[in-house]
Amino acid sequence: MGKILVLYHSQTGNTAKMAQLVAEGAHQIPNMEVRLREVDQATADDIYWCDGIACGAPTNMGILSWKMKQFWDVTMLPHWMKVDGKIGCAFSSSGGWGGGTELACQSILTILMNFGFLVFGVTDYADKLTTAHYGAITAREPRDAGTQEACRRLGSRLAEWVATFVDGRPEQHPCRKPESRRWPS
Amino acid sequence: MGKILVLYHSQTGNTAKMAQLVAEGAHQIPNMEVRLREVDQATADDIYWCDGIACGAPTNMGILSWKMKQFWDVTMLPHWMKVDGKIGCAFSSSGGWGGGTELACQSILTILMNFGFLVFGVTDYADKLTTAHYGAITAREPRDAGTQEACRRLGSRLAEWVATFVDGRPEQHPCRKPESRRWPS
Amino acid sequence: MGKILVLYHSQTGNTAKMAQLVAEGAHQIPNMEVRLREVDQATADDIYWCDGIACGAPTNMGILSWKMKQFWDVTMLPHWMKVDGKIGCAFSSSGGWGGGTELACQSILTILMNFGFLVFGVTDYADKLTTAHYGAITAREPRDAGTQEACRRLGSRLAEWVATFVDGRPEQHPCRKPESRRWPS
Amino acid sequence: MGKILVLYHSQTGNTAKMAQLVAEGAHQIPNMEVRLREVDQATADDIYWCDGIACGAPTNMGILSWKMKQFWDVTMLPHWMKVDGKIGCAFSSSGGWGGGTELACQSILTILMNFGFLVFGVTDYADKLTTAHYGAITAREPRDAGTQEACRRLGSRLAEWVATFVDGRPEQHPCRKPESRRWPS
Repeated sequence: MGKILVLYHSQTGNTAKMAQLVAEGAHQIPNMEVRLREVDQATADDIYWCDGIACGAPTNMGILSWKMKQFWDVTMLPHWMKVDGKIGCAFSSSGGWGGGTELACQSILTILMNFGFLVFGVTDYADKLTTAHYGAITAREPRDAGTQEACRRLGSRLAEWVATFVDGRPEQHPCRKPESRRWPS
Repeated sequence: MGKILVLYHSQTGNTAKMAQLVAEGAHQIPNMEVRLREVDQATADDIYWCDGIACGAPTNMGILSWKMKQFWDVTMLPHWMKVDGKIGCAFSSSGGWGGGTELACQSILTILMNFGFLVFGVTDYADKLTTAHYGAITAREPRDAGTQEACRRLGSRLAEWVATFVDGRPEQHPCRKPESRRWPS
Repeated sequence: MGKILVLYHSQTGNTAKMAQLVAEGAHQIPNMEVRLREVDQATADDIYWCDGIACGAPTNMGILSWKMKQFWDVTMLPHWMKVDGKIGCAFSSSGGWGGGTELACQSILTILMNFGFLVFGVTDYADKLTTAHYGAITAREPRDAGTQEACRRLGSRLAEWVATFVDGRPEQHPCRKPESRRWPS
Repeated sequence: MGKILVLYHSQTGNTAKMAQLVAEGAHQIPNMEVRLREVDQATADDIYWCDGIACGAPTNMGILSWKMKQFWDVTMLPHWMKVDGKIGCAFSSSGGWGGGTELACQSILTILMNFGFLVFGVTDYADKLTTAHYGAITAREPRDAGTQEACRRLGSRLAEWVATFVDGRPEQHPCRKPESRRWPS
């Protein structure tokens, strides 16, 4: 069983809704154990436990929230150099399109890379005008179908990489499942 | 007269449409001369001429297009250290929301900073769910009213900063014109 | 008198040493008032007061420290949309070259841009192999002469931009003072 | 046999020297086939062929060179959505420390992520004050021992991840080889 951690911080509930959708997406791949953790409940054990992690936080001033930063700066600091090699990705919600969600995802990915994780985005589109190339993003609540599907696809892709690279299930490699993918139209 | 250059590269016409809107926005501030230049027509003289520059390019793989990069790498290289102190901003169009437009704007801003420019984004919202905090962005064509307004606001803000800081017209400082601004709702 | 704020967070004392050097550099430009503030002592009034700000923080996981992030997320949040138009720059210290200082500076600049500031880096070199194109950086303590000079040049350039753009002293524009500048060799 | 591609563009020879060192590092892990390709000689077949890729380019204005960008924008565009799942990393040389190498590496990683690659940096230190957390970097030529070792460690780590995740050799996971690692001192 691949082990997926969805770790998130939410202020308004929007990032929490994204986390649920990411977890849903991870469950779409068979034989995945998915753990959803709000940052205040999370411990270093959750990080050790997982093979793959989706980390989400509100976009605050174009960067992840200080609370999620604190988790990595303080809680995880003693474990640095001990958790290399997890597969990671990011998601974030901001106040508006153009409000910095992609930059906030980039800041999360920078942190994950610092811990020696391998980070990725989703090539596939979620609908005609929505993708998650550097993480799943939304303006406020993930309300429309495309935005929700982008969150799910982030979770599925994370599970597919864990299946492919950690669990030895090469048939889950996205390039072997063209029927499951969505190209830009 | 403040001098504004809108420099752009466009592949599909979408970034060109943004450039038009940015130029329109700059014209909304009185006493601004606005020059619109496609990258193939632009020369170093355009850069020397301007007080402020809005630089736009398609989002290609999350980074500005190689053609716009080439302009700065090749055409402008001999002029490095000679054009410091312009006021700069960015705009970009990608294939979809979440497709890397903010990161492409960031790559443009990085280049402008390298040349010693002072770069900025727009705090104001363009409509309920649209802003241009790190540059104006769109998925494909700037079609809906909010996205178009974000482009215009980028141009207006650029002109306001040029008026305030270069032309000595402090009454154009956005903080002195609260009636012209739009807060997030 | 131009007003320069050097705002910093320091864990080991290294970023504090950089802050001192940045302040020294700002003092090199005549008629500048320079205020040095550790993040725990800083208030929103310091931000309102200044024309230009140099913001420094340790590089923690490739991003500014959570403490400095908290200042902008919490203390400054109510003042967003009220402090646009400051001139800003960044500095950071990390554990080693290649350890993320440039990315941490970028994260600081992203925050400053979010508040509507105009941000810049230094084109000039500090010595043969040292510059501060996106902020001043050091690995641990700013010990060698080039690294120290890069900090000072960041402060001087900040003061020069404030003099030029806010105080109406165009003779302080770096392009008018070629004798004070250092090209790469 | 794991397949490692070291793809690079070099203007002055400095990035080419880094590429050699990265290739050397990859060879330190048993059973790795390593292919070194200058960007003008490289084709899409090289990308299809490899399991892992180290991509290097000069830092030009804080972003990878337009020539390397062109490779991904033009040569690789038709292959987008067909090469997902490679393991990737970056290296770059600039004119000076603080000159944008980390940002240039970040721009390379953004491109690799766009193609669906999983990207990483090196946690380990190369010497007391040198690491490659977001890619290997140098100011001009990689001359001192620490900078050279950082390049080699980037190549070794790439090979270790390919061995671990693609070739099914979990004993090559860096966390299982603590004796081979170097902590910050």
